[in-house]
Amino acid sequence: MSADFAAVDWGTSSFRLWLMQADGAVLAQSRGPEGMQHCHGVGFAPVLASHLAKAGAPAGLPVLICGMAGARQGWAEVAYADLPALVADIAANALKLPGALLQGLGEERDVRILPGLAQNDPARPDVMRGEETQLLGLAQMGHQGLACIPGTHSKWAMLEDGAVTSMRSAMTGELFDILSKQSILRHGMPLQGRVSADDAAFLNAVDEMLADPAAALTSLFPLRAAGLLGFATPEAVQARLSGLLIGAEIGKMLAGHECGPIMLIGQEGLGALYRAALLRAGVSLRYADAEEASRQGLLAAARKIWSF
Amino acid sequence: MSADFAAVDWGTSSFRLWLMQADGAVLAQSRGPEGMQHCHGVGFAPVLASHLAKAGAPAGLPVLICGMAGARQGWAEVAYADLPALVADIAANALKLPGALLQGLGEERDVRILPGLAQNDPARPDVMRGEETQLLGLAQMGHQGLACIPGTHSKWAMLEDGAVTSMRSAMTGELFDILSKQSILRHGMPLQGRVSADDAAFLNAVDEMLADPAAALTSLFPLRAAGLLGFATPEAVQARLSGLLIGAEIGKMLAGHECGPIMLIGQEGLGALYRAALLRAGVSLRYADAEEASRQGLLAAARKIWSF
Repeated sequence: MSADFAAVDWGTSSFRLWLMQADGAVLAQSRGPEGMQHCHGVGFAPVLASHLAKAGAPAGLPVLICGMAGARQGWAEVAYADLPALVADIAANALKLPGALLQGLGEERDVRILPGLAQNDPARPDVMRGEETQLLGLAQMGHQGLACIPGTHSKWAMLEDGAVTSMRSAMTGELFDILSKQSILRHGMPLQGRVSADDAAFLNAVDEMLADPAAALTSLFPLRAAGLLGFATPEAVQARLSGLLIGAEIGKMLAGHECGPIMLIGQEGLGALYRAALLRAGVSLRYADAEEASRQGLLAAARKIWSF
Repeated sequence: MSADFAAVDWGTSSFRLWLMQADGAVLAQSRGPEGMQHCHGVGFAPVLASHLAKAGAPAGLPVLICGMAGARQGWAEVAYADLPALVADIAANALKLPGALLQGLGEERDVRILPGLAQNDPARPDVMRGEETQLLGLAQMGHQGLACIPGTHSKWAMLEDGAVTSMRSAMTGELFDILSKQSILRHGMPLQGRVSADDAAFLNAVDEMLADPAAALTSLFPLRAAGLLGFATPEAVQARLSGLLIGAEIGKMLAGHECGPIMLIGQEGLGALYRAALLRAGVSLRYADAEEASRQGLLAAARKIWSF
């Protein structure tokens, strides 16, 4: 058994590599915190070389990468592919890295980076880099309908007949982070601590926002007042902030949604909060593993590119 | 003509002092950037002494202060007065500073700090410090109905029969600031520049949010995408961000509002943006000068305290 290619998901703050066969079997893997931000200092090629060696990749094994390595601030900018997009579209728009960029890799290899997707519509502009591979992986597996990927910038996308046909992003995770750490709300928040999906303060806030997503912005200052007036502990303020933001996002994203099931990609950490909030909204959920979806998308694109 | 008291509005980042007569005449003033934050280092008494001297205050003139000097992180914490609140309530709850806190003032004086207001309701907790004096000043002048004070944390309050009967705050100004400077949106924003109230990108965003305030949170990431895809200049992104946040705040605050006129306190800077957005919402506006309102509130409270 030998690998047919190396699949890499190279994010802003993480790196994951799998040695894969054309039938989808994973023979080895290597992962680390060397995301795009890390590589600005040390370069991208040495990081890739080190993970290929760690996974025991044979000489000459081709590499297919998705994610922020293809951003303007990444290894090499790969122009976005437009919606609607099939696996064939991202495969056709992959960038084969020129030799000059491969110095530091230690040997010659065929290294390609997949494009992100752009919704080139001035009325609802949107972009993603990395998540498209997960979405197209799911589409390959036959999923239709709305999919949700929680994250710093959560992604909602419509999958139809193997293609991503529309998308919407929300910077909910980042908002939670900067409100918790940079705004006046930081004075009433715990220094540590994670929000739990069964916390009543989280779920109550979700319920309120599902009923009235327009109330989110005007519910923020009262979090500070609730702390000052002794109505809420720092932990409850933190949980309520999370519930307000996630609840308002879901309330808005589901407006106009018909009753089909939603595919939730990733159930750990933030995904567990989205799962609880989506269930609170009464939608029917299906679940996918984020890494498995990513590998399926990379595999499908690799098959198109190298015809195996 | 001699002054009856010194009126002081002591905010987070600004200091304003007026020597006033009991009939409301202003004989002298002094102002500077020595807000609460500045005074943490140098102390409050020396700052007050210096402004009293600059304005030529006679020995023994009493001083009445409103604002953040009465916060927990201020000169001396003054407990909030509860809603509904009349001028008599804030006057009765003013804190007379003990001699120990007046060291550095250079002489003995009667110095008092007015309390802020608290809405002690767990379902809609809220607080203010400083704005209550403006609102009660307006109430003294006979204003009834809804009033709006734009700011880092904007304040909306209902005035009825001389009292503040309810309030709501929104951290819109702070959100604009941290989203512009700390979030991913900073990459597509101008380094300098102020939003103009007649900017089409600002007004269009206001219109969208007045029609659908729930869309604010999910409209943020598309600002970044619009910049990346070439649909908007950095200046238009900045103006649209401001319009989204202010429009959503106003849209939510006006929901359920009956058609009476709204008193807008302050029309400069941020106030001009609120004015344009409120007019876009079709409400009838009246205008008050923020400093005049502040002086009227301090004067009315001083009359109660010192019976002149």
